[in-house]
Amino acid sequence: MSLVTEFNDYRRTMNEKIMASGNKVIKRIFNLDTNTYVDGALPEKTKEMMGLSCSMVLRCDDCVKYHLGRCYELGVNSAEIQEIFSVAVLIGGTIVVPHLRRATEYWEELINT
Amino acid sequence: MSLVTEFNDYRRTMNEKIMASGNKVIKRIFNLDTNTYVDGALPEKTKEMMGLSCSMVLRCDDCVKYHLGRCYELGVNSAEIQEIFSVAVLIGGTIVVPHLRRATEYWEELINT
Amino acid sequence: MSLVTEFNDYRRTMNEKIMASGNKVIKRIFNLDTNTYVDGALPEKTKEMMGLSCSMVLRCDDCVKYHLGRCYELGVNSAEIQEIFSVAVLIGGTIVVPHLRRATEYWEELINT
Amino acid sequence: MSLVTEFNDYRRTMNEKIMASGNKVIKRIFNLDTNTYVDGALPEKTKEMMGLSCSMVLRCDDCVKYHLGRCYELGVNSAEIQEIFSVAVLIGGTIVVPHLRRATEYWEELINT
Amino acid sequence: MSLVTEFNDYRRTMNEKIMASGNKVIKRIFNLDTNTYVDGALPEKTKEMMGLSCSMVLRCDDCVKYHLGRCYELGVNSAEIQEIFSVAVLIGGTIVVPHLRRATEYWEELINT
Amino acid sequence: MSLVTEFNDYRRTMNEKIMASGNKVIKRIFNLDTNTYVDGALPEKTKEMMGLSCSMVLRCDDCVKYHLGRCYELGVNSAEIQEIFSVAVLIGGTIVVPHLRRATEYWEELINT
Repeated sequence: MSLVTEFNDYRRTMNEKIMASGNKVIKRIFNLDTNTYVDGALPEKTKEMMGLSCSMVLRCDDCVKYHLGRCYELGVNSAEIQEIFSVAVLIGGTIVVPHLRRATEYWEELINT
Repeated sequence: MSLVTEFNDYRRTMNEKIMASGNKVIKRIFNLDTNTYVDGALPEKTKEMMGLSCSMVLRCDDCVKYHLGRCYELGVNSAEIQEIFSVAVLIGGTIVVPHLRRATEYWEELINT
Repeated sequence: MSLVTEFNDYRRTMNEKIMASGNKVIKRIFNLDTNTYVDGALPEKTKEMMGLSCSMVLRCDDCVKYHLGRCYELGVNSAEIQEIFSVAVLIGGTIVVPHLRRATEYWEELINT
Repeated sequence: MSLVTEFNDYRRTMNEKIMASGNKVIKRIFNLDTNTYVDGALPEKTKEMMGLSCSMVLRCDDCVKYHLGRCYELGVNSAEIQEIFSVAVLIGGTIVVPHLRRATEYWEELINT
Repeated sequence: MSLVTEFNDYRRTMNEKIMASGNKVIKRIFNLDTNTYVDGALPEKTKEMMGLSCSMVLRCDDCVKYHLGRCYELGVNSAEIQEIFSVAVLIGGTIVVPHLRRATEYWEELINT
Repeated sequence: MSLVTEFNDYRRTMNEKIMASGNKVIKRIFNLDTNTYVDGALPEKTKEMMGLSCSMVLRCDDCVKYHLGRCYELGVNSAEIQEIFSVAVLIGGTIVVPHLRRATEYWEELINT
């Protein structure tokens, strides 16, 4: 199974279980998560790029995968992705590099399928 | 092999090797780790719940698994676990959500076996 | 001016400005913040103790001050506070100690006024 | 002295001392820091907004001040700043809120002088 | 495949792809990464030991693996590695322990092959 | 009052209060803290340099001050300090730079008094 499919399937399955467990605070945070990135004073695309850079400096591989997927759907191109990566590695340091490797692998799969 | 068995086996094997390597500082920290969570001014259960919430905001999957296992043994129920999760996700933000997914999967296995 | 008054005044003033700026996502997070700690499957007191321990391991002095204030109002005593501190320092390591110093100073002021 | 002047003066003075100390690695990182944010595949403004959001989730007040200053110079408006803040608080959680307070105070000073 | 081979192979493959993607900022950071650890006022060995301890407290398994490999090549012995581990666990707290387990496993493989 | 005196005085006063509060776990961690850095397989000086680099990447100003003071007492010179700083900024990224500024100021005071 591809990295993208595996990530999306696990994410969907577990999110459904979490929503079914019925905790109101968590439900509302999931809800907010959807609403925060919609077009507003800033376009969705800019916010997703910020989401990607934040995920990299916080070194969360799954968050990186999610925002890479969203950036891909919104038409961010490879040159732009490279610059987002460069900002994140500069700010976060070489500790971000292992995540850069996995992000690069995931992005390649996104653009090659 | 189940997630719970796999985690516990690896943890036991490696902890034995670490203790055998004989570094005094590390041995004493392992010792302290056992003593910190015993009943005192606060009951063990409350301290384990704090250990779980701290592990989630620090985004350490193995630490989350360990404290979920201890909470389960001490009788923390699913509604209480949900509230611990909600505090951790609120404080730590959506960056905690991927860890919430894995924690939910692990907790399900604990209560269903 | 006392540490407690200074913290509370600045917090109140700035929170009012933030709420007045009218961003819906931030308003809803502030709202959620209030609702998460109310009595539920777990009592408010337990959740505030988790909030305090999480704030310490994440090394956020202002968050520590806030939860110390809430713990004080809810009747958490000094022996209990010491145990929360001990869990946080064990989990978070000596990097937490400078925050333990400031937390100790703030708690002393809370119980002596 | 204003927050903005105080921050800029200390930053300038210490950066000069650091550059004078002559360590090549640090000099090259300072150099890279300047080059990373220039117009490229992405405009400088977008990169500065990413720099601001990353600084907030990493909870670095001085980094937040620096990028707020740059955003202000590049014409980012208050509604856009609010949305950057909202993304950062959502991703980073309530632990980011004390930094949001100080960022709000600093932004107010920037736009009111 | 061994842990060491698997890590080195993936690291090499992905680093080549990253270098091929041609982002100048990232290339220069990779370059700096090589230059920072060479003999200078401090010997390479001391800097690699610092790199290892920093990687542990920042809880980056891949960074730990890399610096363990470099320390092994530079002749750091097991007693010295134990002391580096002890400093990191003391400073970083028990949240570092799961990384200590994986580091111990990797070091064992390095010295037994 | 100088930065060094102010730091040392506050640290001493609060550490005494913490020790007086009598929590056994915290007392033992303070004890361990003293014992970890003594000469062993690695000399005290090397461990203090690791302590300094870890404190910088974890961005703890007070921890940086403490280890700078210890390094100074143990004869670490300015060129060596610069290289420790360079490793920390490379690993931790530009987010470490504000701490580098304050560390530079503190080190200057140490060597000029």
